[in-house]
Amino acid sequence: MKRTIYFKNKPTIVGTGTIAGPKESSGSIAKYIKNKLDDDMYGEESYEKAESKMLFNAIKTAIDDSKKKDNEIDALIAGDLLNQIVASTFAARNFRFGYLGVYNACATFTEALTLGATLIDGGYMKNVVCATSSHFSSAERQYRYPLELGSTRPPQAQWTVTGAGACVLSSEGRGPKITCATIGKIIDFGVIDANNMGAAMAPAASDTLFTHFKETGLTPDDYDLIVTGDLGVLGSRALKDLIWEKGFDIEKQHVDCGELVYNICEDEYQGGSGAGCSSLVFSSYLYNKLKNKKLNKILLIATGALLSSLSAQQGESIPAIAHAVSLES
Amino acid sequence: MKRTIYFKNKPTIVGTGTIAGPKESSGSIAKYIKNKLDDDMYGEESYEKAESKMLFNAIKTAIDDSKKKDNEIDALIAGDLLNQIVASTFAARNFRFGYLGVYNACATFTEALTLGATLIDGGYMKNVVCATSSHFSSAERQYRYPLELGSTRPPQAQWTVTGAGACVLSSEGRGPKITCATIGKIIDFGVIDANNMGAAMAPAASDTLFTHFKETGLTPDDYDLIVTGDLGVLGSRALKDLIWEKGFDIEKQHVDCGELVYNICEDEYQGGSGAGCSSLVFSSYLYNKLKNKKLNKILLIATGALLSSLSAQQGESIPAIAHAVSLES
Repeated sequence: MKRTIYFKNKPTIVGTGTIAGPKESSGSIAKYIKNKLDDDMYGEESYEKAESKMLFNAIKTAIDDSKKKDNEIDALIAGDLLNQIVASTFAARNFRFGYLGVYNACATFTEALTLGATLIDGGYMKNVVCATSSHFSSAERQYRYPLELGSTRPPQAQWTVTGAGACVLSSEGRGPKITCATIGKIIDFGVIDANNMGAAMAPAASDTLFTHFKETGLTPDDYDLIVTGDLGVLGSRALKDLIWEKGFDIEKQHVDCGELVYNICEDEYQGGSGAGCSSLVFSSYLYNKLKNKKLNKILLIATGALLSSLSAQQGESIPAIAHAVSLES
Repeated sequence: MKRTIYFKNKPTIVGTGTIAGPKESSGSIAKYIKNKLDDDMYGEESYEKAESKMLFNAIKTAIDDSKKKDNEIDALIAGDLLNQIVASTFAARNFRFGYLGVYNACATFTEALTLGATLIDGGYMKNVVCATSSHFSSAERQYRYPLELGSTRPPQAQWTVTGAGACVLSSEGRGPKITCATIGKIIDFGVIDANNMGAAMAPAASDTLFTHFKETGLTPDDYDLIVTGDLGVLGSRALKDLIWEKGFDIEKQHVDCGELVYNICEDEYQGGSGAGCSSLVFSSYLYNKLKNKKLNKILLIATGALLSSLSAQQGESIPAIAHAVSLES
């Protein structure tokens, strides 16, 4: 059994596309986001259709950014949080290339990057788009309560990012390269509070990170940044403790996309979450820093809480997973 | 743009596991199914937990059948029809290897085989399990009506298979080999009747089949069988017409897993469907025939209708997809 796979031909991210809602577009990474919305309905009649249109926009923007034509793209690998990943499906319906739907909750983005890198690196395809999205309003009403109820949010709750990010992976060209990936396994510490995703996901992030260090022989100092997806403030603290107990101190290198995406204010409590959180932050801010060589090597670990409304209602705890992707400028 | 990928090292299916509910266990492929249930609750307190336990059983049976140990498996690629694919997640929670969740509705099985074959063929992994499940009762109450309502089924409706199938793909060993795969793109002919999946999916199957013939240069006569996933009786007829119009006659070679899985009687109308339909029929009956060289070369095309309850309620038509995998004995 091995969970780390290496990409000898180093698939290259030759273009990205990002789009975000009003709240994210006024956050701390705002200037790196390409398309900013004033209205999170995006001219559509439902939140779900708005999310799907955002994902389509991110994919289209990424393809344009890569200077490729649609007919040079071999496949789209995409996923989101909606039941039956319909945001991805309906976005993909507008393209004529192949489509592979994936789902690992908020870890979907690095799952897609891993599979996309495999298809490119193995010589099976030349250009693959990897994309994910989430939308505060579609997620809130699917997983929690109708927005009209105006439910109070507990302090450990995160705020689902309204945004989408997409990357074009290519077998040639210039840009940040994917060098290896460590695939996550499911970790379930028995957390049952569906408002406390950070606590559920931190052990999975720790397991993947530890496995990555063990299998590659790398240490935290080999990375400029170790970036988790959406652990939030509490979850990030838990991860740093858990991995410290295993002998690695990541205090200097660690940041969390959920902590980066918003301005710090009381409203968002723990920061952002959602399948669109890591794809938005990576495809905007982090991609820019890698491309301009302000960062040389980062490890991106998107983290997912694999519950459903039904599994929570049936009293199940929250299984979590984290996939890590190593990137070099 | 190309949608067919080739596996030079020919990943081998070295073991399979199957489990089915009472109805499937008395159907026409019954004698090839390994684990047969008298009760579709499988000792659990909900249909969803029963489905997850079935999927776990299929995976475990496949690993045992392959004579591998759990710690020789590098990853599980799995999916199902439940929201957030929780049947797969909770089945995967019991294993210690990596997990990649995938979703393309009833086309998920060939999507998983394609990605699994890529990971093996490219030398990234040695042993990968690909598995999917579905359950009549969990699907019925999620997608349609509470079972207690006793709703009348329209004549074009299919019957969701209660079953799970799993395959262990390996870089070495004896068994049927995966030689190539043609990845589907989304086709939407505007069908809005969620009871008529066959009509929605047939155009996607036709597109993938035509693309497969065009890109590989093969013809129907190169295959002993061309096996679709769950088009049902009407959908199969539609596929044969659609592909005939494009110049290929598959009358002699075509069978449908949905048509194979049940005895022919009025109750099931169109035959079976569900993410577990193609995985159950392939991993039992078809695998047996390939392994014993009663069949030499088949094309398996699982077909998926990518709707959700919500997308149907919001008036969307049904996008469909089909992924084809070519197998040799």
